[in-house]
Amino acid sequence: MISIGIDLGGTNIKAALVDHKKGFLQTTSIPTHADLGKEHVFDRIALAVKDLVEEHNADPIGVGMGLPGMVSLDRKTVKNPPNLPGWKVENVADEIFKRTGYKCVIENDANLAALGSAHFGKGKAFNSFIMVTLGTGVGGGIIIDKKIYRGTTGMAGELGHVIINYHGPLSNSNTRGGIEAYLGQRFLSRFAADTIRQNPENSLYSKFHKNFDKLEPVDLYHAAEDGNELGIDILRQAGEKLGYAIVNYVHILDIRKIVVSGGVAKAGRWLLQPAEETALKYLMPPFREEFEIIDESLGNDAALLGAASLAFEELR
Amino acid sequence: MISIGIDLGGTNIKAALVDHKKGFLQTTSIPTHADLGKEHVFDRIALAVKDLVEEHNADPIGVGMGLPGMVSLDRKTVKNPPNLPGWKVENVADEIFKRTGYKCVIENDANLAALGSAHFGKGKAFNSFIMVTLGTGVGGGIIIDKKIYRGTTGMAGELGHVIINYHGPLSNSNTRGGIEAYLGQRFLSRFAADTIRQNPENSLYSKFHKNFDKLEPVDLYHAAEDGNELGIDILRQAGEKLGYAIVNYVHILDIRKIVVSGGVAKAGRWLLQPAEETALKYLMPPFREEFEIIDESLGNDAALLGAASLAFEELR
Repeated sequence: MISIGIDLGGTNIKAALVDHKKGFLQTTSIPTHADLGKEHVFDRIALAVKDLVEEHNADPIGVGMGLPGMVSLDRKTVKNPPNLPGWKVENVADEIFKRTGYKCVIENDANLAALGSAHFGKGKAFNSFIMVTLGTGVGGGIIIDKKIYRGTTGMAGELGHVIINYHGPLSNSNTRGGIEAYLGQRFLSRFAADTIRQNPENSLYSKFHKNFDKLEPVDLYHAAEDGNELGIDILRQAGEKLGYAIVNYVHILDIRKIVVSGGVAKAGRWLLQPAEETALKYLMPPFREEFEIIDESLGNDAALLGAASLAFEELR
Repeated sequence: MISIGIDLGGTNIKAALVDHKKGFLQTTSIPTHADLGKEHVFDRIALAVKDLVEEHNADPIGVGMGLPGMVSLDRKTVKNPPNLPGWKVENVADEIFKRTGYKCVIENDANLAALGSAHFGKGKAFNSFIMVTLGTGVGGGIIIDKKIYRGTTGMAGELGHVIINYHGPLSNSNTRGGIEAYLGQRFLSRFAADTIRQNPENSLYSKFHKNFDKLEPVDLYHAAEDGNELGIDILRQAGEKLGYAIVNYVHILDIRKIVVSGGVAKAGRWLLQPAEETALKYLMPPFREEFEIIDESLGNDAALLGAASLAFEELR
């Protein structure tokens, strides 16, 4: 069985022909040119779909697409997606069907990262798990009995806006002291920059003090790997915050497998080990059994594979 | 259809004969005498069951029982229930069947309060809702599509141990800054006493300064109703904390109906209105639609009706 997965972002459209057993047959990426308007974006997606199909003479069952924003319960319509200017309430599924003749289902991209892990990644091992995506923002998806848990309106799993400190800083959302305000890439980088500024003797200072904007979590990872105590400490503090948020997820959901993905997760064990230690310290004892944080190695491919998986589930 | 509900606590055994449409046909309450050992407790429960059946010449489909502690996924066995000394891993369902001839299913009492609300209370109006029980501790149950959501091991909905401030106080559990550490009856009373001590001119001081141990949330409610600003302020601060916890539940679960029950909930609108205002302030905008906090008027009967409802669901 073959389907087409699309990962629609504000910058790039990623598309893939995916076999339900073998995974990727081919992937492609083109700029979104979101500023040229939604019709243009739909046309570009349709073109990518046609190219993939023709090149492989494939017979896909349909198109699954991930995108940011609120997706309707029937998985056809998206509402006010961020990073896609001019989009309001758009029936994306219909637009793609009109242009390609393939049935289309859409879903929030964080949920699809979870589904991709469930079908093709570390999540395969578990019936239920919580996917935490650590990127520009912090998001997530909840898989219960192999299915995306969507909640009443399809918005469940806003894991980045779970409060760990009501006195805490604001992030992009209304929520104060949500985990995204500590671990979103911009927030983590800013915290790191502030900390490094106070330690001008540290090699991270000499490397970045002229341009802290270039500091990314992966730089902290490299510093930590080189034994830089300040880098280790910054990631440890961030990891502890993640641990508190995970305690909240687990106490509510009683799901003990936490799969972590996204750019910030590249900080690896320096982030995830303190997260695990903190969670184990503050979880009630029965919840510690079987508790585990797992690093998803699929990276950004998870959402694209999840998009194709959604087509397998919904359009077969 | 008739069943028997049991609410087993450390102090009292409550039992009821329940009609699935009419609700209570008869209720009874006897002391648990937990100190006399588990065999004695099982015997007393069996006696209560037999008395109810004989008095009404009833033909119940079985017994549903709520009790504190971890209940196995097959709903027969409880593990280390608090307040029941000497209990380890006990197959309660078998013990009751042996003594009464009636099939028995058991469940955590907080989950059953939710199920009771779903069948007989405010929860009837909703497919999915979150029940928050504010009593000695803070607990809860999650109803998804009219069923208890149990999680991987049956422990989902530990809503009292959701962190709202990782710098915060410890409660009985390991969790720091969980909502129970602010709203558990003992913690709320202590916070109130500390606040009142700093305001010796307030009438709450003259009423309680000789014995702050007697101060209960309902006293704060009465003071607030009488226009006592200090009482209003204490409940407002507590309500705000509850609001932060509710933000966490809603962002994870995307369930916007919050049904509140238990002794502390008697503080009523003085507690729940600030909770609702705080939640609405910090929820992401789409989650505010349809959001509502509802006061469950069933009170302690919710768990007992939920126990009977469990029998209707599982033993019919």
